[in-house]
Amino acid sequence: MALIVQKYGGSSVGTLDRIRNVAARLLRTRDEGNQVVAVVSAMAGVTDELIRMARELSENPAERELDVLLATGEQQSIALVTMALHDMGVDAVSITGRQAGIFTTGSHTRGRILNMDPSLMRGFLNDGKTLVVAGFQGVTPNGMIHTLGRGGSDLTAIAVAAALKAEVCQILTDVDGVYTCDPRIVPNARKLPEISYDEMLEMASSGSKVMQSRSVEFAKKFGVIFEVRSSLNDNPGTLVLEEHPNMENVVIRGVSIERSQARVTITGIPDEPGMSGRILGVIGEAEINLDMIISNIAHDGFARHSFTMHSSDLGKAQAALKPVIAALGSNAKVETEGGIAKLSAVGIGMRSHSGVAATMFKALGAAGINIGMISTSEIKIAVTVDETCIEDAARAVHDAFGLDKRPA
Amino acid sequence: MALIVQKYGGSSVGTLDRIRNVAARLLRTRDEGNQVVAVVSAMAGVTDELIRMARELSENPAERELDVLLATGEQQSIALVTMALHDMGVDAVSITGRQAGIFTTGSHTRGRILNMDPSLMRGFLNDGKTLVVAGFQGVTPNGMIHTLGRGGSDLTAIAVAAALKAEVCQILTDVDGVYTCDPRIVPNARKLPEISYDEMLEMASSGSKVMQSRSVEFAKKFGVIFEVRSSLNDNPGTLVLEEHPNMENVVIRGVSIERSQARVTITGIPDEPGMSGRILGVIGEAEINLDMIISNIAHDGFARHSFTMHSSDLGKAQAALKPVIAALGSNAKVETEGGIAKLSAVGIGMRSHSGVAATMFKALGAAGINIGMISTSEIKIAVTVDETCIEDAARAVHDAFGLDKRPA
Repeated sequence: MALIVQKYGGSSVGTLDRIRNVAARLLRTRDEGNQVVAVVSAMAGVTDELIRMARELSENPAERELDVLLATGEQQSIALVTMALHDMGVDAVSITGRQAGIFTTGSHTRGRILNMDPSLMRGFLNDGKTLVVAGFQGVTPNGMIHTLGRGGSDLTAIAVAAALKAEVCQILTDVDGVYTCDPRIVPNARKLPEISYDEMLEMASSGSKVMQSRSVEFAKKFGVIFEVRSSLNDNPGTLVLEEHPNMENVVIRGVSIERSQARVTITGIPDEPGMSGRILGVIGEAEINLDMIISNIAHDGFARHSFTMHSSDLGKAQAALKPVIAALGSNAKVETEGGIAKLSAVGIGMRSHSGVAATMFKALGAAGINIGMISTSEIKIAVTVDETCIEDAARAVHDAFGLDKRPA
Repeated sequence: MALIVQKYGGSSVGTLDRIRNVAARLLRTRDEGNQVVAVVSAMAGVTDELIRMARELSENPAERELDVLLATGEQQSIALVTMALHDMGVDAVSITGRQAGIFTTGSHTRGRILNMDPSLMRGFLNDGKTLVVAGFQGVTPNGMIHTLGRGGSDLTAIAVAAALKAEVCQILTDVDGVYTCDPRIVPNARKLPEISYDEMLEMASSGSKVMQSRSVEFAKKFGVIFEVRSSLNDNPGTLVLEEHPNMENVVIRGVSIERSQARVTITGIPDEPGMSGRILGVIGEAEINLDMIISNIAHDGFARHSFTMHSSDLGKAQAALKPVIAALGSNAKVETEGGIAKLSAVGIGMRSHSGVAATMFKALGAAGINIGMISTSEIKIAVTVDETCIEDAARAVHDAFGLDKRPA
């Protein structure tokens, strides 16, 4: 008998009818001879409504209290899903984050999992019960309610699967799996049977919306194999796991894109030690996440830095940079460019293949697309292009690597 | 510096504006130099909506899961009230039933308080914080969520006051205090400055809606003095406490009424041991609460039993009695009467005064009201009358004892 963890997001439990569908699917999984643990999010809309009330009472609601407030959403879902299971004759029991033994640390509203005590869940499983666990929440070691931030329910599912040593953890969502590219942009994109943790991480950090990086990191750390699949059908999804010799042998696993990027370039920086730290320091203090960072010495003997960020952070970045630039002397200048997008080609095969960048750049050139910045990691090549060209760019690169075809 | 516990019910926190009013009142109490602990219910309507969803998913939702579901209502209230306090500059913190250390036992949906561990609350109070505690909820010693049933938030307030040794516990509600009778029926009813626990208990169990008996019992057991007062104004309310020599010296403290009662009389019961137990046993098994119980031997040598119950239980009682009556022999007969009401006169002064019953019966007679059943305790005389006469009866008895006048 296999132990399966299934995670259902807020839209999967968004109405009482959908809650019944989730219960029916859990029942089916159980009837197939498995032990089942569901991890569920708050009903879609509930969290937003709670946040609306909080903001009406306080311009800047305390994060400790937001956690207390928002954790009720999942607590309601687990009770309702459990009731729907009972109505189908399934012996089920709801489990809050605290009861699941999810102990957390870090700031309120963005807790990190510290450790797990699954003894209560084990006891219920030994009694033959189906468990319905609240996603997104835990408690600090001294019993304060904590939420886990964006993607927190995925993290709960992975952590519960790790603690219970589940055979598999299924992340049931509104997409079928992980594709070679977003099928809305590249119609012949192919669903991947498998992808490695490292590739999934690079995809996540380069715009793929399927899962948050930290859930993938947690799975990699604890060796939890998980599957991204649809909550609407029974098609097999994409397994995310450590790379292994029998994985599809490809150079590039997929292409991801990220829109609404902006570039900041600072020129005329005196070529002295500590300059980069000063500039990036003020950006970090302003809580702006940088993505690509490029630095070089220009022909004029001054250094130049370029970095990209989400375009909504551009104004904040300019304000933060102003005093630093003024202090750098009269040659220093800031140039900004909005309206750009990033395209990333990701694949562990890149490590043992040369010419990958060349193939990619040629394809973009043939399509008449100008490349802005370039940045690479061991398993990723990322470029910026004009945002208006990003879809054409994705199709060109997808075609150039033949990603629509199943490798031999 | 006095420690004051204030309990606010669901209608007091029913909208965000009302939550702001509650916060303002807590702030004022704090500004008067007190340490303040609020106990709050779920926002009015929230609990009903959750129950509606539960019933849509399951005809008979499991009580364990109802507890998990309903406890979210108070958890939302405490976070929202705390946010409103923050917005007014008050250093406040929300406390769930579990964090308040309220440990419970008994059935789900009607938990009983087993013991309290107020150490977390004490720590926060020592840090100068205002606490906002979730009413109606606790946890079992093994961490299962428990609700305390009807009137549970009052019970929480009394228990928290006991555990923290609060100077006073204020039950803020939509009435001004405890009256000599319901002012909607007896316009010259007078608000009582004080009432003893025992009188309050008799009033509660004879129809006064102000508070549930078990909260009063808990307060009596732990010597918690509490005050019933309005959440809408600052008028002093009614203190409920152990009787003391300086209490207003009256024979009758108040008159309470209970409508929608029904009487069942069984005649022709063989006068043998065990008969009462058999009859009352089936009523108890059917979970029907009996109120007045009268038994007698009739002139025919057979015994007769009469008892009253809420009229909505009458059908259930008849069904439960059928097999027993059949087994009692051909003389046994059941008679039922709906449309009656109960009037109770309550007062500790009764213990040292004779003629109280006579005064009451004379007053009813003078008003042309027929008395049905009569039952007495040490501090109460209760009678049944036709439901159509109950308001006249209340006024007649209230007048006969001069309850509108403050005693000399």
